[in-house]
Amino acid sequence: MQTINYKPGLEGVIAVETAISFLDSEKEKIVIRGQDLIELSKQKSYLDVAYLLLEGNLPSPVEKAAFEQQLKENYDVPKEVIDVLKILPKKTHPMDAQRTAISMLGGFDEQIDDRSVAANKKRAIELLGKLPSITVNSYRVLQNQDPIQPRADLSYSANFLYMITGKVPTAIEEEIFDRLLLLYIEHEMPNSTFSARVIASTQSDIYGALTGAVASLKGNLHGGANEAVMYMLNDVNNAQSFVNLLKDKLNKKEKIMGFGHRVYMKKMDPRALIMKEALHQLCQQTGDYSLYEKCEAGEKLMEQEKGLFPNLDYYAAPVYWMLGIPIPLYTPIFFSSRTAGLCAHVIEQHEHNRIFRPRVKYIGKPY
Amino acid sequence: MQTINYKPGLEGVIAVETAISFLDSEKEKIVIRGQDLIELSKQKSYLDVAYLLLEGNLPSPVEKAAFEQQLKENYDVPKEVIDVLKILPKKTHPMDAQRTAISMLGGFDEQIDDRSVAANKKRAIELLGKLPSITVNSYRVLQNQDPIQPRADLSYSANFLYMITGKVPTAIEEEIFDRLLLLYIEHEMPNSTFSARVIASTQSDIYGALTGAVASLKGNLHGGANEAVMYMLNDVNNAQSFVNLLKDKLNKKEKIMGFGHRVYMKKMDPRALIMKEALHQLCQQTGDYSLYEKCEAGEKLMEQEKGLFPNLDYYAAPVYWMLGIPIPLYTPIFFSSRTAGLCAHVIEQHEHNRIFRPRVKYIGKPY
Repeated sequence: MQTINYKPGLEGVIAVETAISFLDSEKEKIVIRGQDLIELSKQKSYLDVAYLLLEGNLPSPVEKAAFEQQLKENYDVPKEVIDVLKILPKKTHPMDAQRTAISMLGGFDEQIDDRSVAANKKRAIELLGKLPSITVNSYRVLQNQDPIQPRADLSYSANFLYMITGKVPTAIEEEIFDRLLLLYIEHEMPNSTFSARVIASTQSDIYGALTGAVASLKGNLHGGANEAVMYMLNDVNNAQSFVNLLKDKLNKKEKIMGFGHRVYMKKMDPRALIMKEALHQLCQQTGDYSLYEKCEAGEKLMEQEKGLFPNLDYYAAPVYWMLGIPIPLYTPIFFSSRTAGLCAHVIEQHEHNRIFRPRVKYIGKPY
Repeated sequence: MQTINYKPGLEGVIAVETAISFLDSEKEKIVIRGQDLIELSKQKSYLDVAYLLLEGNLPSPVEKAAFEQQLKENYDVPKEVIDVLKILPKKTHPMDAQRTAISMLGGFDEQIDDRSVAANKKRAIELLGKLPSITVNSYRVLQNQDPIQPRADLSYSANFLYMITGKVPTAIEEEIFDRLLLLYIEHEMPNSTFSARVIASTQSDIYGALTGAVASLKGNLHGGANEAVMYMLNDVNNAQSFVNLLKDKLNKKEKIMGFGHRVYMKKMDPRALIMKEALHQLCQQTGDYSLYEKCEAGEKLMEQEKGLFPNLDYYAAPVYWMLGIPIPLYTPIFFSSRTAGLCAHVIEQHEHNRIFRPRVKYIGKPY
């Protein structure tokens, strides 16, 4: 009994039945509620897909406007959350500040013991409304900056980017940032989503599940990868130096972030390809193609040397950079976007629950 | 490929290789590092087993004294943690306050990026030292009480109980509370331990892993069960009324907390039996056997009607009660005890890591 079926990291093991999303590795498709994420990214906005995740279908224009209005009504974060952020040690990692802020939100929920779909959907809207402010102001307060107020006259994504940079974005910046959020929104069963579902399966609440998901996403084998990519890109001046740096890392057998994916990676992550195009667009605006050239040179080298292809983090990182986003915010923004998918998963877990309680293979001292 | 091996809740699936602990369901043994937990509970104290979990062997008397001394040196919690607890809404669940406090501790760690065994062991000692104060003072502050200071002149367990009740415990109270902590210390791969390992497998840190574990333990299908048992016991005046209450619940097909366990339950949880004896001992002290009588009557009924046996939570709850511990602290104390096991698991996960990333069975809209 003990030795059957042990797959380190549960690789290839079906852990969940879900109607939310699926990575079809044969067709290389990211399926969200029956729709192709890449197609959605060409035609729809982040809020369309957030609505799709929570409601099961795309919104009509009227439904979308009402959804955005609901999020805006939830923009404000309790003053106590900002007070707590101010107390945290200034060297706190922004993901840890985001985690602490989400953890404390549970105390403001008057119906915290209600696990119904309706109550969870209400929470999802509140959380999606508050996440831009929590994300940006966690970082600002740690930097000794004053909190910035959300602007309800801008679109959801334009406001988010405005809060990050302090400038109202151009139309193209808004569009690319929205696409970035959309591409990060949901991705089947990565570690953070699995963490959230495992926690929710004890009938614990959405705040606890999301707190665990932030903790998971922080790890450099998961969400932390986009930051690692950017530090690497900034370490060198041009494409050739970047290739040399990667070669050096390969020689030392160091893990190189931003490449490969356990599930589907016979070619480039289709989300990465869209971000590569966005990067090119942003470089066009400035006339400075150096980041694009570095990335492309790195991509070629890794394919030649290791047969590995870029994942989303590899091309998202330079897009974040070109949008003027501070590096420590990359993973917190990823989490903020993913909140839509995570909430859908917690709702589904509470609706069709079976507590996760696997077994172990004991390899310890005999008894 | 999609339909293979799907076990809801990963029931019976081997998810982890571990040298830490194992529930041997055939021998009905709880194995901790090769030792029998029940035997340990008769001869050793909580700190012996905490040391065993972290170091792999039982301590010598000198090692144990040094270990206890190290914990005592870490009793104090940063002032900022207490300040944050004071800001939380007063209706915050004590588990949520404990979760927020642990989450913010990450910001005080000067070597937060160091995942070595040595650094993690140091953190485990710091956390075990601070947990009594975090646990008790989270609750006290929410109750508008002043924080209570730990007393290093008492043993670890005596101090913990003193902080909870405000009274120095008698020898028998100290002994029983210590045994309670010992029995809760580790139990293979329950949901909270699994949550911690899943999170840690992204190379996220011990604070994040433990934050997720608190969130998991809060759920009423997991740690919350002991509180539910006590509310049920307090709802009735005597054994007969308790039997009637249980019968009524059975008729309504309500889930009754405190009975059954997915892994081993052909007879009573051996830990529950020890707590049953402790309950008898405590009743002897007061001459009031009413709680013992209620529990025993409930136990008999559930065996007759459902063939189910008490688990640890069923007999731990009335022991907590007889020790004068407020009900909302039952699950936070369970977490505090389990921290020793959780830290051992995070250390092991970081040492032999493979990121958890399972797959799903897609049952959503066709595409």
